[in-house]
Amino acid sequence: MSYFDVASSAPLHPVARQALLAALDEGWADPARLHREGRRARLLLDAARETAADAVGCRPDELVFTSSGTRAVHLGVRGARAGRRRIGGRVVVSAVEHSSVLYAAGEDAAEVPVDRTGRVDPEVFAAALTGDTALACLQSANHEVGTEQPVAEAAELCRAAGVPLLVDAAQSLAWGPVDGDWSLLTASAHKWGGPAGVGLLAVRKGVRFAPGEPADERESGRSPGFENIPAIVAAAASLRAVRAEAAGGAARLRALVDLIRTRVPELVPDVEVVGDPVRRLPHLVTFSCLYVDGEALLHALDREGFSVSSGSSCTSGTLTPSHVLRAMGVLSEGNVRISLGAGASGDEVERFLAVLPGVVASVRERLGAPTAPAAGPAARTAGLVLDTLGKRCPIPVIELAKVIGDVPVGETVTVLSDDEAARLDIPAWCGMRGQGYAGEEKRERGSAYVVRRLI
Amino acid sequence: MSYFDVASSAPLHPVARQALLAALDEGWADPARLHREGRRARLLLDAARETAADAVGCRPDELVFTSSGTRAVHLGVRGARAGRRRIGGRVVVSAVEHSSVLYAAGEDAAEVPVDRTGRVDPEVFAAALTGDTALACLQSANHEVGTEQPVAEAAELCRAAGVPLLVDAAQSLAWGPVDGDWSLLTASAHKWGGPAGVGLLAVRKGVRFAPGEPADERESGRSPGFENIPAIVAAAASLRAVRAEAAGGAARLRALVDLIRTRVPELVPDVEVVGDPVRRLPHLVTFSCLYVDGEALLHALDREGFSVSSGSSCTSGTLTPSHVLRAMGVLSEGNVRISLGAGASGDEVERFLAVLPGVVASVRERLGAPTAPAAGPAARTAGLVLDTLGKRCPIPVIELAKVIGDVPVGETVTVLSDDEAARLDIPAWCGMRGQGYAGEEKRERGSAYVVRRLI
Repeated sequence: MSYFDVASSAPLHPVARQALLAALDEGWADPARLHREGRRARLLLDAARETAADAVGCRPDELVFTSSGTRAVHLGVRGARAGRRRIGGRVVVSAVEHSSVLYAAGEDAAEVPVDRTGRVDPEVFAAALTGDTALACLQSANHEVGTEQPVAEAAELCRAAGVPLLVDAAQSLAWGPVDGDWSLLTASAHKWGGPAGVGLLAVRKGVRFAPGEPADERESGRSPGFENIPAIVAAAASLRAVRAEAAGGAARLRALVDLIRTRVPELVPDVEVVGDPVRRLPHLVTFSCLYVDGEALLHALDREGFSVSSGSSCTSGTLTPSHVLRAMGVLSEGNVRISLGAGASGDEVERFLAVLPGVVASVRERLGAPTAPAAGPAARTAGLVLDTLGKRCPIPVIELAKVIGDVPVGETVTVLSDDEAARLDIPAWCGMRGQGYAGEEKRERGSAYVVRRLI
Repeated sequence: MSYFDVASSAPLHPVARQALLAALDEGWADPARLHREGRRARLLLDAARETAADAVGCRPDELVFTSSGTRAVHLGVRGARAGRRRIGGRVVVSAVEHSSVLYAAGEDAAEVPVDRTGRVDPEVFAAALTGDTALACLQSANHEVGTEQPVAEAAELCRAAGVPLLVDAAQSLAWGPVDGDWSLLTASAHKWGGPAGVGLLAVRKGVRFAPGEPADERESGRSPGFENIPAIVAAAASLRAVRAEAAGGAARLRALVDLIRTRVPELVPDVEVVGDPVRRLPHLVTFSCLYVDGEALLHALDREGFSVSSGSSCTSGTLTPSHVLRAMGVLSEGNVRISLGAGASGDEVERFLAVLPGVVASVRERLGAPTAPAAGPAARTAGLVLDTLGKRCPIPVIELAKVIGDVPVGETVTVLSDDEAARLDIPAWCGMRGQGYAGEEKRERGSAYVVRRLI
């Protein structure tokens, strides 16, 4: 069994387990109480705060523990925005933030686009910081494709504009502190091998912050609810432990990821490896496979003993492809995210590379995907219309690939589709196949996507 | 060592510990993922929900897990209120609810008073349910004095008025399900020996509910953040375990509490045992000692090996006495709450009863408290004014007790005090001493409390 999905949740680090067990006996009491059990709990909580603050790179009194990374983001965004409500309510985010950031920022947030690698241009980010901007949010590294963001540059530009910057460091904190002069930082312990139930919210001194929840004396009034001290102790201890292992682990995993990045496109036809190849998390790589159903691919890999995740629409409850892939403008069908844990071995990666081609081929065969670029016989149809209404990703793209050979070079084919993934995947297919994407036209049901045959 | 403060937080139940350890290995993955680790986590979560729902007495799809009891209350109050915002924003609460309920309900909530035992009159509660009432909140039993509330009657009257009733069952759920036709229910696992980090929020089908936080797909959209599955599994398993032990444990602890209720006033002069003597939690008893500093008493008991808590002003960060004692109109100085765990023994209680009189006497002696009712010599002063400004509980009451013998029967003494506890404790002292309380007059600094000597 190979678990390649630590970016969703990592198994408990041995140090976390040990610390948790010890703290279950010592840290169950209410740290607000005056009796010895309460004082003991308070001591554990204070020590954990010191340890975690040291790893974050902030003062202990700037750090509070929340019950999850999502809560840290919600509380951080709300508190920072409320603290500057006189300036205005605008929140600037990158288009590839974690959903918790996007939902906390709200529908009227200003989204800064990213390039095809998923990276924000700091100058474009800075240009979005208008006078009524209460808060800017930029992740340290992307959770789906691993691309690192220019956080230090963004932080400097935010300082110059007088806007606090919140950095969601959920995916990167295990690897090191976040560079630059950020104002708020959030993270999540179960991403680094800590237990579930612990998030971090750091708010630098001097940042205006107005807690938005009913009053509660715990955690400086910034995170209501009884502190989960055993889990907090385990989170802090494991953060220190993974940091001690980070440099060696990063080099090793970076090499394994490089192997995957190189070998997958060699082994599997019609694959796009996405994300920045260099400025990226060491342990994470994402690729998409044309003509493949992401859910079927996940299940097939699961049967072969590999646990991975996917940003394909068919693996989401809403049947929409990942907003990250959409913002990057890359293929979403047959999407696979691999995130390696500290224990991942070269043998496991080799076995994955050995298994993947057959798995992809069998999913493609089951879907009737074209196996070779369509030969171009005499065109049967000019102005061909392909009705794929009601069909889900990757069927519209497969149907398109099957008929493109029938379209005279220079002519168009129109694909009717009501699948959300088509909007992303038809242009992506055109890019990969050297065909021309001529645009989308809304229809009563779904859209018409026009593709011009170029080769 | 005797830990008599389970109402603050109980040590981990052995079943919780065992379940937590098992689930750390099985339940760390993301239950929203399709791979085997994710599916395994989802199965554990579903099973825990079935178990907990069975104990609560609701359907599994009516129950979500939150990260604490406080969060369950905040989410429940906000969601129920938002769901009925067209009806109006009024929230009705008892005056003795947990602070999390009072803060969530807000400053403009309608507080229903309680009697001297801390109990709400259901008819008075019902009379507060006006046409613009969105939600009513009534605890199942009080966390400071143990008094059970007439929840079933209140629920029936709420149904008749068309107002949903939220029951905070944090202190009682270990002992049994909450009777009656409530609409929402909240609880907290670390109160019954489950781990920290788990609260319960049940919302009956048909109750209008609008989550008030940024969107999140977890827990039916009602409790954002990654689920803490190991803790949830431990919470559910331990709730089932404590329920199985509840009937026997309740009878045993009820007898020990009865012993304390009877013996403490016999052993210690000038003590008031508060809360309903019969309709109460089995394991909890509270009393207050005249002329005693609560913090000094807690520390002295701690040195003797007893961990208890207190609602006295000197033990709170805000230097105000417990709002529960205030609402009941009982003495707050020298307040001690004892809440016995399942393992509490008769020997421990006997030792407590043996130690308490000496501890109270030594605190009183240190404070210079009057040891006998003041003899009434010829009055030196009519219209005596006693300036205790700047002095904290219990000094103003001690000073009053020292001079009352100097006041001619029928005449008054005026106590100047800027201590919040005086407002509660001077009338309480008058009640205990058979003297007349003639009222309070606001002054530029603090208040003037007028006491008439009757005997």
